[in-house]
Amino acid sequence: MPNANQWAHRMTKKTIKLVDAAGNPVARKEVAFRQTHHQFLFGCGIFDAVEVANRNVPADRLAFLERKLDLFLEVFNGATLPFYWGRFEPEKGKPQTKELQAAARWLKERNITVKGHPLCWHTVTAPWLLEMSNEEILNAQLARIERDVSDFKGLIDTWDVINEVVIMPIFDKYDNGITRISKDLGRVGIVKEMFKKGRESNPGATLLLNDFNTSINYEILIDGCLNAGISIDAIGIQSHQHQGYWGREKLEEVLERFSHFGLPIHFTENTLTSGHLMPADIEDLNDYQFPEWPSTPEFEERQAREIEEMYSILFRHPLVEAITTWNFSDEGAWLGAPAGIVRVDNSPKPAYELLKKLIKQDWSTNVISTTDDNGIVTIEGFLGDYDLVCGDRKVSIKLDKNAGTAQLVI
Amino acid sequence: MPNANQWAHRMTKKTIKLVDAAGNPVARKEVAFRQTHHQFLFGCGIFDAVEVANRNVPADRLAFLERKLDLFLEVFNGATLPFYWGRFEPEKGKPQTKELQAAARWLKERNITVKGHPLCWHTVTAPWLLEMSNEEILNAQLARIERDVSDFKGLIDTWDVINEVVIMPIFDKYDNGITRISKDLGRVGIVKEMFKKGRESNPGATLLLNDFNTSINYEILIDGCLNAGISIDAIGIQSHQHQGYWGREKLEEVLERFSHFGLPIHFTENTLTSGHLMPADIEDLNDYQFPEWPSTPEFEERQAREIEEMYSILFRHPLVEAITTWNFSDEGAWLGAPAGIVRVDNSPKPAYELLKKLIKQDWSTNVISTTDDNGIVTIEGFLGDYDLVCGDRKVSIKLDKNAGTAQLVI
Repeated sequence: MPNANQWAHRMTKKTIKLVDAAGNPVARKEVAFRQTHHQFLFGCGIFDAVEVANRNVPADRLAFLERKLDLFLEVFNGATLPFYWGRFEPEKGKPQTKELQAAARWLKERNITVKGHPLCWHTVTAPWLLEMSNEEILNAQLARIERDVSDFKGLIDTWDVINEVVIMPIFDKYDNGITRISKDLGRVGIVKEMFKKGRESNPGATLLLNDFNTSINYEILIDGCLNAGISIDAIGIQSHQHQGYWGREKLEEVLERFSHFGLPIHFTENTLTSGHLMPADIEDLNDYQFPEWPSTPEFEERQAREIEEMYSILFRHPLVEAITTWNFSDEGAWLGAPAGIVRVDNSPKPAYELLKKLIKQDWSTNVISTTDDNGIVTIEGFLGDYDLVCGDRKVSIKLDKNAGTAQLVI
Repeated sequence: MPNANQWAHRMTKKTIKLVDAAGNPVARKEVAFRQTHHQFLFGCGIFDAVEVANRNVPADRLAFLERKLDLFLEVFNGATLPFYWGRFEPEKGKPQTKELQAAARWLKERNITVKGHPLCWHTVTAPWLLEMSNEEILNAQLARIERDVSDFKGLIDTWDVINEVVIMPIFDKYDNGITRISKDLGRVGIVKEMFKKGRESNPGATLLLNDFNTSINYEILIDGCLNAGISIDAIGIQSHQHQGYWGREKLEEVLERFSHFGLPIHFTENTLTSGHLMPADIEDLNDYQFPEWPSTPEFEERQAREIEEMYSILFRHPLVEAITTWNFSDEGAWLGAPAGIVRVDNSPKPAYELLKKLIKQDWSTNVISTTDDNGIVTIEGFLGDYDLVCGDRKVSIKLDKNAGTAQLVI
C-alpha cells in the first residue's frame, strides 16, 4: 500500500460492527475487503460501446470490439460517449437517441459512470444550422440540450455542456451556427444560456465547462461565469499532448491556477501518444496530417512513464476528481496518432498495464482483517464501493468521507 | 470643413428661430456660430495643474507652469489628474484632498472636464497596506473610494475605477496590498467590489475599467464583468506606444474587438513619442531605463503624422467618446520618453500644432449664416457648446443629438 499521507485525501477509515441475523457479534472472524468501484472517476473515451451495445456490425467485428470493451472494463470506471451534434443528428429531427441510450445502458449495467460530450460546440455541429437565423439556431441548440439531457437522465448525468468557448466566437476555419450565436451572445452569455438549459433539464447533473485553452483566458472566462452566477460543477481541462508531455512543472502550474476557484477539476481529454511528437510549431493540432503514425516500443515505454507521472500528480491533487484518457485504442484515434493504450489489434501497450496496476492495485484497497471480540473491524481504504466477505457471506459497503461506525448484518 | 459623411456621427443640424425681446423675428441678420466646447472629450494628463492651482512653487517655476497650462487650455477640454494612492495619501489619514480639489476646481473653472486616475491599482498603491490583513486592505480600499469619490463629486465625475486588472493578481514584481486582495477576490470579484463602491459614492459618475492589455484576456474580463452585472460606463484602453505606433490595422482590429460590447470606448492614456523607439523585446515598458531620450526634428514629424492618423481613426469610430494624450510635456514624462506634444522648455512640437488644428479647426464649427424673413437660421456643426453672435448680442447654445427647432431671444 502506498504512503498513506500522499493519498490521504483519497482515503478514509471506517469502523464496522458485524452481527449475525440474531444480532450477535461476529467475533474473531477473518473479513476480506475488496474494492469494487472507485469514487474517483478513471474515465476513458469509448465510442465503440455504441456498436457493441447495438450489435449492428458483422460478427467478427463485434467480437473484436467486445474484446476491446472487456479490456476497457478491466481498468476504467468512467466512459465518455460522443454527442457531436453533426453526427448525433445529421438529419434534423432524426437523432440517434436509441443507439446512444443502448450504449449508455450497456455501460451503466457494467457499473460505468457515463459522460456525454459535448452538448454545444462549434466543431462537428449540425450543418443544417447554417440555414437558420441566429435566433433559430439558439432555439435549436437549447431544444437539443433539453431533449438530450432529458432523454438520457439516469443513464448520463454528467455532461460537457459547452466546449472550447475561449476560441468559439473567433473560430474562423469555417462558418458554423454555433460560432455565429456565440458572437451575438458573447462567451459568458452563451455559457449562461447553455448551463441554464442543462440545469433545468437535469437539476442533479454534473455540468462541465471544457476547454483546451489553459491560459489566463480560460481563467478569466471561468471567473466571469462564476461571478455571473453560472453553476459550473466542474472545470474541464483538455490535455492533448501530441506535441509532447507537459511535464510536472506545467502540470502543477495549471493545477495551481485553476485551483483558485475551489471547484472540482476534471481532466476530460488526456492524450499522451506512443509515437513521434508532432512538431511544436503547429498551432491547431488538426492541421497535422500524417499518413502513418506508428506506435514504437521505445515510445510506448515513454508513454507509460509519462502517464504514470501525470496520473500520479493529478490523483494527488485534492481538487482533481476525474481523469479521462481520450483514446482507448490506436484504432480510429484522433489525428491518426498512436494515442491509445492498446494498439490497433487490441494488444495492450505498457501504458495499459501501468494504468491497470495504478487503478486496480496501487490505488485500490484489498485487505484482509479480523473482527475483535465485539465483532468490530476497522478498514482504511480508498474511497469507493467494497465487497465485504466473511466466510461464505458477502455484503456491499461504501467508503466515503462520512466516517463513523456502521453495523452490518452478515 | 471636412467631408460631412465621415464625421456625420459627431455632428448635428439645428434650426433656430431668433426673436427680439418683444418677440419679433430677427430677420435677415448675419449670425456667427462659434464652437466653444466639444462634446467629444479631447483629454490630456496635466498633473502640473496641482502646482499651478495651489501656487506652492517658486515664482519663476510657477510662471513656467502657467505658460504650460495656457498651452494646454488652447487645445484640450479634458484633463486627467493623479490619484495614485501611494502619492495621494503617503501617510495614512493625510490625503492631499485640498491640493487636488484646488487643481480640479481650477480646471473646472476653465471649462475642462476632469478625470481622476486611478482609484484602485496595484502600482504606486499605499505602502502601508502591507501591514494589514487582507480584510483590512479591502476595507481601506473601499473607504478610500468612498471618501475620494464623495470629496470630489461635482469637481470630478469621471473615474478610472480600477486599473490593469488582467495582470493584477499575477503581478509579481513586488508585493503590494492590491495584488493580495485581487488574488482573494478574483478579477471579476475585485472589479465588482470597486465599481459597487464607486457607484454608491457618486451614482451619476462615469466609471471606467482601464487596461493596457488589449488582448482577448481583456475582452473576456469585460464580458465577465458585464454578465456579472457590473455597471461599467466606458471601456478604458491604454495605448502607450513607446515601442512604435500600432498602425491602422492593429488600431482598427482593437476597435472592432472592443466594440462588441456596445459600450463607449475611451482611449485613456495615449503615447506616441518624438524619439527613437524602445526595443520591441521589452515586455514591461518600465524595464527600459534610458539616461537621455531626446526629441528630434525627424521623429517629431513622425509623431505628428502618427497622431493625426490615430486621432482621425478614433474620432471616426462611433463608439469612441474620449482620447487622452498621456503626457502634455516631455518634462517629467513617463520613462523619460519624449512623449509630450511640447518640449521640456514648453516649445510646441509639430504634434501640438497638429492637434490644435484638428481639434480647434478641422473638427470645430465656426460659421456665419443669415436668418431668413422669419428669423430662422439652421446650423450644422460638431456636437458641443456654441456662442451665437448677432450684432452686439451673444447667447450660448448647445448642439446635441436632440435635434429640432429652438427659439432664442437675443
